[in-house]
Amino acid sequence: MSKIDRRALIAVAGLALAAPELGHAQESGKPQDAAAPKPEAKGVTHTLARYVVNARFEDLPETVRREATRTFLNWVGVAIGGSHHETLDVAVSALAPFSGPPQAGLFGRTERFDIMNAAFLNGVSSHIFDYDDTHLKTVIHPAGPVASAILAYAEMHPVSGRDFLNALVLGIETECRIGNAVYPNHYDIGWHITGTAGVFGAAAAAGKLMGLTEQQMVFALGLAASQPVGLRESFGSMNKSFNPGRAAANGLFAAILAAKGFTSSDGMIEAKRGWANTVSTKQDYREITEGLGTRYESLLNTYKPFACGIVMHPAIDAAIQLRDEQHLKPDQIARVDLKVHPLVLELTGKTAPQFGLEGKFSIFHAVAVALVEGAAGEKQFSDRAVRDPVVVALREKVVPVVTPGIAAAQVDMTVTLKDGRTLHRRIEHAIGSVERPMTDAALERKFTDLADGVLPEAQARRVMALCWSLETLGDAADVTRAGVAQA
Amino acid sequence: MSKIDRRALIAVAGLALAAPELGHAQESGKPQDAAAPKPEAKGVTHTLARYVVNARFEDLPETVRREATRTFLNWVGVAIGGSHHETLDVAVSALAPFSGPPQAGLFGRTERFDIMNAAFLNGVSSHIFDYDDTHLKTVIHPAGPVASAILAYAEMHPVSGRDFLNALVLGIETECRIGNAVYPNHYDIGWHITGTAGVFGAAAAAGKLMGLTEQQMVFALGLAASQPVGLRESFGSMNKSFNPGRAAANGLFAAILAAKGFTSSDGMIEAKRGWANTVSTKQDYREITEGLGTRYESLLNTYKPFACGIVMHPAIDAAIQLRDEQHLKPDQIARVDLKVHPLVLELTGKTAPQFGLEGKFSIFHAVAVALVEGAAGEKQFSDRAVRDPVVVALREKVVPVVTPGIAAAQVDMTVTLKDGRTLHRRIEHAIGSVERPMTDAALERKFTDLADGVLPEAQARRVMALCWSLETLGDAADVTRAGVAQA
Repeated sequence: MSKIDRRALIAVAGLALAAPELGHAQESGKPQDAAAPKPEAKGVTHTLARYVVNARFEDLPETVRREATRTFLNWVGVAIGGSHHETLDVAVSALAPFSGPPQAGLFGRTERFDIMNAAFLNGVSSHIFDYDDTHLKTVIHPAGPVASAILAYAEMHPVSGRDFLNALVLGIETECRIGNAVYPNHYDIGWHITGTAGVFGAAAAAGKLMGLTEQQMVFALGLAASQPVGLRESFGSMNKSFNPGRAAANGLFAAILAAKGFTSSDGMIEAKRGWANTVSTKQDYREITEGLGTRYESLLNTYKPFACGIVMHPAIDAAIQLRDEQHLKPDQIARVDLKVHPLVLELTGKTAPQFGLEGKFSIFHAVAVALVEGAAGEKQFSDRAVRDPVVVALREKVVPVVTPGIAAAQVDMTVTLKDGRTLHRRIEHAIGSVERPMTDAALERKFTDLADGVLPEAQARRVMALCWSLETLGDAADVTRAGVAQA
Repeated sequence: MSKIDRRALIAVAGLALAAPELGHAQESGKPQDAAAPKPEAKGVTHTLARYVVNARFEDLPETVRREATRTFLNWVGVAIGGSHHETLDVAVSALAPFSGPPQAGLFGRTERFDIMNAAFLNGVSSHIFDYDDTHLKTVIHPAGPVASAILAYAEMHPVSGRDFLNALVLGIETECRIGNAVYPNHYDIGWHITGTAGVFGAAAAAGKLMGLTEQQMVFALGLAASQPVGLRESFGSMNKSFNPGRAAANGLFAAILAAKGFTSSDGMIEAKRGWANTVSTKQDYREITEGLGTRYESLLNTYKPFACGIVMHPAIDAAIQLRDEQHLKPDQIARVDLKVHPLVLELTGKTAPQFGLEGKFSIFHAVAVALVEGAAGEKQFSDRAVRDPVVVALREKVVPVVTPGIAAAQVDMTVTLKDGRTLHRRIEHAIGSVERPMTDAALERKFTDLADGVLPEAQARRVMALCWSLETLGDAADVTRAGVAQA
């Protein structure tokens, strides 16, 4: 046939049709323009991969290294704290028969698993109390997926503290920047963003430690894009802490395959049919590609001083400040008036909690227990605490009133004493916020409190010391070895 | 405080606000109505779980058992066929260091893995050639995720052929019905539906064999909903066959955890923030809940007689019919005119393929090789075949013309011989379609062709015999044991 004929035929092929009954032909061929949801961006995955592959520890600002170390210490503490919760007991017993060689340990426990199962289990443990770190811009809990994956890997393939810290920072950058690109739409649709963006962070950090090439890293991110984890609908069940754990394991799985030559497509984050267009109605790729190596999302990470939703933190902060400054005793208090943002009562309006977990959704209990015990850790949200007669009596005197002009980050508290005196405290930003970060000493108290009952105090202090000195450790996995329970 | 005060306060809590900076509070509390994408359906997950938990082999119509057996035999054949492709070699070498006990085998290979890794690897193997079964209504490849999961499980926990066949049917029903509920929107958005719906099929089938209670099955489906796999963007890379494999492993992982008491939420498929609302803009829950036990999606499963996209099947069918009936020799042929649907050239318009895989996207090669060799299996899409001088010469004589009135399932072929005679064949439905299913004998030829070079012919015949007698087997895993390579 002549070239003319042939050109004519190819021209005809330009047509795009909707042909659902030929879906399979679509599946093995190229997608149809008719169904294209978004214009295509270029090179986003490659740009991110190039940065992760080339970024050096020496290039990290001291502030970033410092914050990442605090992030790591806080994460180890919550992983130890959750290690004997029923959620983890169930997961450990379910997975034990299928585990590979005992390559990595579990914080606070004696069992050892292959690194993918260990990454899953430590990731679950660290989110059980919902007390881990938070990147408030995206509500991602950054450490869980990333640290769980690379610490397990580090036990099998020794990694220096410097390389570990660098990988931790790069993993956090990867997941938070990808989260920024699709938040809030992606979260509003129903995705648990910690599990969906976290897979990328785990793959990037693990791939960094494995020394992937740029192309391998692109494929690792592509395999990560193929394995998002978690729906918000599961909140309130064990499935919530499942998500960061599975994200850690999936990211590690992606990096392990890519390191051996398993391929994906080149633009899985940004392509027309890529991750961002598939899981979100918003895509701002500049959040991923701009300021790499100069702007660090890890500097925006925060740590909860109180074991409950951030909405109650300003009131708890005010209560503890007044209690400690005035040496308040519960029987001195006649009434506690609170001016609050509407979300406080929408999310934590439970007046008479019967169980510890319900206490996390009761502003009445939270303020009362903070005034009685001067703290709001996991112990203050136990069945014991919500049933303590002194706390129960005091919570009946807590009167939160939704007040126009009070922002979500604020609270205005007035404590009226039986002797007629009134004490006032207004909070603009609660302790634990970006504006008023927890001190290192407060992070240590939180860690000690979480480890109490799981590890001997001396051992807990040893683990903390190793976390603080992460940057100088010859072998980052010393932290895990120090943090497991003695058989 | 008085009851009046308290009621007033709770009333205020009714407000719903957008407060992104409080995302974390949202995350640990209830989702905000403002962001609710869809009204809530009721009981869909429970209804499906109840059906799966209670359905008995004795209730399966003979036609359903027969089709499921054909589905199983076709799947075993493609799993054997892909077992030595580079994709699987890479995955096997990457995962070997992390595998648990050697609980399950891989078709066509000597290695053994724990059941979750084995499910992944057999699932990958079965999709490498894109030659597995297809549920055309949703373009789901049903067997991969389901059979890979339960056959691996069956090697660890012996299961009768009857129970295995029942679980296979229930898994296919689960994934295809959930796929029906969201197709085509879900697929058009960019999801690889075989991996996203397949997870549910694997969890349901594995959970059935584990004897989960209705509540445990609801949670297994919830954990499956938390782990969708695969984007269409990855098509053309190893990542495509990764998806059914990972779906099998994720579904098995979900069922294993649920069996030990790991929880999820109750309505993860249909709830306001559930899977269907999160991954699709269409939700038709009747597709999931109506006609359970009376309407069987597994009866709509089809098998490819040719190792390429379905769009070329009518033309290949016509070519083989004319060749065989007329004993055509290539050198007799002057020209081959084809009246085709536009998608044929849109998807398979490649005129001069240089490599085997490119041949799958060339109607010119497909028709030529079918006329020369009387087949279009994996061998006819090899580098050898696309470079065969006789095939190359003939493909230059193939003239496809897009013709109004020719449906996607049709083709009109006229072969002009050098002696002036013309041979005509019109195809309304190609062999392999629901209207003209492959015969059992044709499925056996396909199986033999795929096993050729992987297993000795006698062994391949033994495996086929076991597949045909699945329903009467005392131990379904005999099929795997017969289908692995001899060490």
